[in-house]
Amino acid sequence: MDIATLIGLVGAFALVITTIFMGGNAAGFIDIPSVVVVIGGTFAVTFIMFPMGVVINAFKVGMKTLLFKSSDPQDIIRLITSLSDTARKESLVALEKVNIDDPFLKKGVMLVVDGSSEGLVRSVMEIELEFMKQRHRQGQAVFKGMGTMAPAFGMIGTLIGLVNMLSNLSDPSSIGPAMAVALLTTFYGAIMANVMFLPMATKLEERSAEDVLFMQIMIEGVSSLQRGDHPSVVKEKLQAFLSPALREAT
Amino acid sequence: MDIATLIGLVGAFALVITTIFMGGNAAGFIDIPSVVVVIGGTFAVTFIMFPMGVVINAFKVGMKTLLFKSSDPQDIIRLITSLSDTARKESLVALEKVNIDDPFLKKGVMLVVDGSSEGLVRSVMEIELEFMKQRHRQGQAVFKGMGTMAPAFGMIGTLIGLVNMLSNLSDPSSIGPAMAVALLTTFYGAIMANVMFLPMATKLEERSAEDVLFMQIMIEGVSSLQRGDHPSVVKEKLQAFLSPALREAT
Amino acid sequence: MDIATLIGLVGAFALVITTIFMGGNAAGFIDIPSVVVVIGGTFAVTFIMFPMGVVINAFKVGMKTLLFKSSDPQDIIRLITSLSDTARKESLVALEKVNIDDPFLKKGVMLVVDGSSEGLVRSVMEIELEFMKQRHRQGQAVFKGMGTMAPAFGMIGTLIGLVNMLSNLSDPSSIGPAMAVALLTTFYGAIMANVMFLPMATKLEERSAEDVLFMQIMIEGVSSLQRGDHPSVVKEKLQAFLSPALREAT
Amino acid sequence: MDIATLIGLVGAFALVITTIFMGGNAAGFIDIPSVVVVIGGTFAVTFIMFPMGVVINAFKVGMKTLLFKSSDPQDIIRLITSLSDTARKESLVALEKVNIDDPFLKKGVMLVVDGSSEGLVRSVMEIELEFMKQRHRQGQAVFKGMGTMAPAFGMIGTLIGLVNMLSNLSDPSSIGPAMAVALLTTFYGAIMANVMFLPMATKLEERSAEDVLFMQIMIEGVSSLQRGDHPSVVKEKLQAFLSPALREAT
Amino acid sequence: MDIATLIGLVGAFALVITTIFMGGNAAGFIDIPSVVVVIGGTFAVTFIMFPMGVVINAFKVGMKTLLFKSSDPQDIIRLITSLSDTARKESLVALEKVNIDDPFLKKGVMLVVDGSSEGLVRSVMEIELEFMKQRHRQGQAVFKGMGTMAPAFGMIGTLIGLVNMLSNLSDPSSIGPAMAVALLTTFYGAIMANVMFLPMATKLEERSAEDVLFMQIMIEGVSSLQRGDHPSVVKEKLQAFLSPALREAT
Repeated sequence: MDIATLIGLVGAFALVITTIFMGGNAAGFIDIPSVVVVIGGTFAVTFIMFPMGVVINAFKVGMKTLLFKSSDPQDIIRLITSLSDTARKESLVALEKVNIDDPFLKKGVMLVVDGSSEGLVRSVMEIELEFMKQRHRQGQAVFKGMGTMAPAFGMIGTLIGLVNMLSNLSDPSSIGPAMAVALLTTFYGAIMANVMFLPMATKLEERSAEDVLFMQIMIEGVSSLQRGDHPSVVKEKLQAFLSPALREAT
Repeated sequence: MDIATLIGLVGAFALVITTIFMGGNAAGFIDIPSVVVVIGGTFAVTFIMFPMGVVINAFKVGMKTLLFKSSDPQDIIRLITSLSDTARKESLVALEKVNIDDPFLKKGVMLVVDGSSEGLVRSVMEIELEFMKQRHRQGQAVFKGMGTMAPAFGMIGTLIGLVNMLSNLSDPSSIGPAMAVALLTTFYGAIMANVMFLPMATKLEERSAEDVLFMQIMIEGVSSLQRGDHPSVVKEKLQAFLSPALREAT
Repeated sequence: MDIATLIGLVGAFALVITTIFMGGNAAGFIDIPSVVVVIGGTFAVTFIMFPMGVVINAFKVGMKTLLFKSSDPQDIIRLITSLSDTARKESLVALEKVNIDDPFLKKGVMLVVDGSSEGLVRSVMEIELEFMKQRHRQGQAVFKGMGTMAPAFGMIGTLIGLVNMLSNLSDPSSIGPAMAVALLTTFYGAIMANVMFLPMATKLEERSAEDVLFMQIMIEGVSSLQRGDHPSVVKEKLQAFLSPALREAT
Repeated sequence: MDIATLIGLVGAFALVITTIFMGGNAAGFIDIPSVVVVIGGTFAVTFIMFPMGVVINAFKVGMKTLLFKSSDPQDIIRLITSLSDTARKESLVALEKVNIDDPFLKKGVMLVVDGSSEGLVRSVMEIELEFMKQRHRQGQAVFKGMGTMAPAFGMIGTLIGLVNMLSNLSDPSSIGPAMAVALLTTFYGAIMANVMFLPMATKLEERSAEDVLFMQIMIEGVSSLQRGDHPSVVKEKLQAFLSPALREAT
Repeated sequence: MDIATLIGLVGAFALVITTIFMGGNAAGFIDIPSVVVVIGGTFAVTFIMFPMGVVINAFKVGMKTLLFKSSDPQDIIRLITSLSDTARKESLVALEKVNIDDPFLKKGVMLVVDGSSEGLVRSVMEIELEFMKQRHRQGQAVFKGMGTMAPAFGMIGTLIGLVNMLSNLSDPSSIGPAMAVALLTTFYGAIMANVMFLPMATKLEERSAEDVLFMQIMIEGVSSLQRGDHPSVVKEKLQAFLSPALREAT
């Protein structure tokens, strides 16, 4: 599990709640109608922005991705190097019997085993990479959209509160509390955007960049397999994708 | 019909109106001159920004797109695979008699049947795709432009209200209500931008991305047809455009 | 003439002025020094941002473009198709005698008639297109720059008014009117940016996209001429640039 | 000298200062500590943002560029056309004796005279163009960075002033003047950003675009020289870079 | 060491602290709970945005980069020119014994010595460059993300303070100090973003651009080595990467 996300969420909420309690007026920060208009409004607008399937998918993928622990790129490089070793010592066809967990790498290797042309293998793999990137971008767009709309609905709520308060200034002692309540929607919108939706969109972006890196290593690796490169050349080439700190001695 | 858009619009307005009624002063939220200056100003400026035909077209396309239910990409892949099957078993010319609903796919297939070179077919289809993208972007630009101008006119209305109020502070009891009215244009602008124009622009963007995906599948499929790829290769290649969840077993 | 621009400008100003008059204090919205600092400041800064020739040119081109009625792309396609017909029936040299109004198309055809290589014709036409785009972008940049600077000078004027007012709070009855005057520069800046400069920049962008489309049709058409494509192929190809609604039956 | 920059700077400052004097409280707009914190803070942060050499260079290049009067592109085209004439009538080697002021053009011509391959000449010239663009972008980044940081430090100064004022509300008569002083840093930051740094960044961008245009004309021209194009073809091709208004009859 | 960063940081903080002390109420600017919520919240959200390893790495690389003194590009050009000299006079294999400090250049030269094809050498070096750029962008993203989140948490803290203050207006004398404290989180957020995170992100960007420049010189140089270009051609070509001021006479 990706503990960073959990630590961050728990930490941020703990800090905000502690700060609220230190003010000695914690009950003043809960106003159910304000909660409903900001959360409800944000979700309603999200359904105008995105087809229903896309929103549901973004949340499903989002949850999985936020809790997902990324694997080690060296494992992939080691696997491809060993595949290239097998292909050299035995034959490309021998790769058919090797057990490959990753479906993307497996598909590429199977295309090679089937004797597809280098152009076809690369083009199928690159199309898949390209459209995976587009689907990831769509998921991030849902979270970013919610991160824009939450403060907007916070502001709309505050405007409603202010108009109500200003139309009825007869009792001066009610001005302060009325304005406090009006500000709550802005506060909720800011929390939702800055503690949840926007940081989550960033993490999805980071995870997507990692997936893309892994798939680019696999595309380059399958190309090398097909060209029959020497395993040490394969390893050398694939190491170039990694930061020097993550590389293994060749 | 695309229910998400409808649910979102109804939900967002219901929430805002409920919140207003809970304040017990719903009548205070209606001010006809404020409505006129924000809506009228936004539309007037839209006609400065875009040629008249473009605005009318954006609304026509917009309505159709917002209510439109996207089709299943598997249907397209199945159709192209069966075309490739027909072309292999009979001949490319046999495709002429197949009934193809989509005008873009039909045009591509007809070019192939006419014996046009692969370069010409691809270039005609890609030009059409490229300029469809540009027309879609233009439609989105109209909605985004209105989403920028509505809050701007909201602010202009509020400034007019504030200047009027400040020039005439003699009666203190009128300050509150005058300021409440001044804030209404900002409120209307925020609602128009964040509940209508901006989320609609996002949905148009999503729908356009879907159309582009379908057309890219068709271009790749027609190329495969023309090269005489085996139907199973065609299917394999076109599946790569889809998310693993949407793919069919080969 | 492009009536949309005119309708928009007249409509937006009429709405703002009506709203001001309804407040019953129209005189309070005119303050000559405020007008001078916002308009003057915006223009002064524009001369820091752009060379003098560029500003003057942007205004000249701007006026022409805002009032310009775009022509029908079908006319261009019809002309090129008929040229291709002439070239086939007679010869490329016969094109020399055809009357072509558009200087860009004429230049391309003349290069073809002179027997220049296909590479040279395309490269000369594409260089011209590319640098026309750059000059258009420059013109838009002038209007966008003014649309950014007008509100900035509005805010600077308001800050000056606020500092003056705050330094001298002895007479409470003068606070309101002084603040009203201070807000006027913000109001002028918002009007200038949102009713004039920014929407005009958008329309210039739209018009430029149209010019680019026409020139791309011409480049593709001249290429087809030179390759001796059949007139029906030329028409088919050039129709792909247009939206289905604008196409003619082939 | 580029008079537009000068006119703009003098005009903008004259307008702001006149407006201040009309308020009758010009002395209230000068507060040395506020000046120091905004200017000093902006420069300090600039040194965190950019290596020292880059900042100094940006100012040196900036001053030169702001005062620089751009040359006529027709002079360059005329020079290259005459070089191509010489090369045709005499020989490429004869170009060695021609006096060329521009170091970039001279280098390109010298490479041609030395008999370098067309690929090498183009690649050396394009590398130089590409990295000149990068250095120019860096210079603009310095000015844009200062244009972002000046208002930020203005706001920081205002926050310090507000906290000081609010902690000590005992004397109501001091509130106004204290707040006036607090606003001064925001005012200084807005002036520095909008009258100096941001417009200067835009002018550097414009000048850079001009330099790039000239260098692209030179690269295309040297290529034509090397291929032995006819002088009239060279001229025709290079004119395509210019706006129709700037072109000479061929 | 890079003194500019140090001078900037010390200078900016000195200016802010001096300004605070001049207000005579320095103690009023320290509020531990406000410090905790802004710094803590920013870091907590950073862990939601980025995987833990990425944050730690960004800080490690950040510290190294901020204190790093960039080397002289002429040294690299001189080294590559001398390598090309050795390769010409002796042989490519003789390069194996030359001592090369930079691991990237060393790897490229070793690939050449091993007799790898030009395509392979270039592709390995370019993959390494591309993914180094991506890692650098990730590091900058961490700092930029913190620079966005610090003011957001400043605003959240201020909203909490305002709601607390407004709910309890009974004692008018407490309003000022309560609001002063509420503004402190906005002040801390502005300082953190504008004095630390955002300028540091810019410097990382600048340093990365320098590293990229050096690596591009090395890639071009290794290519020249492999093609056996004459040392003077190598030098000529590599000088084109530098600004004229930094070039050496050839």
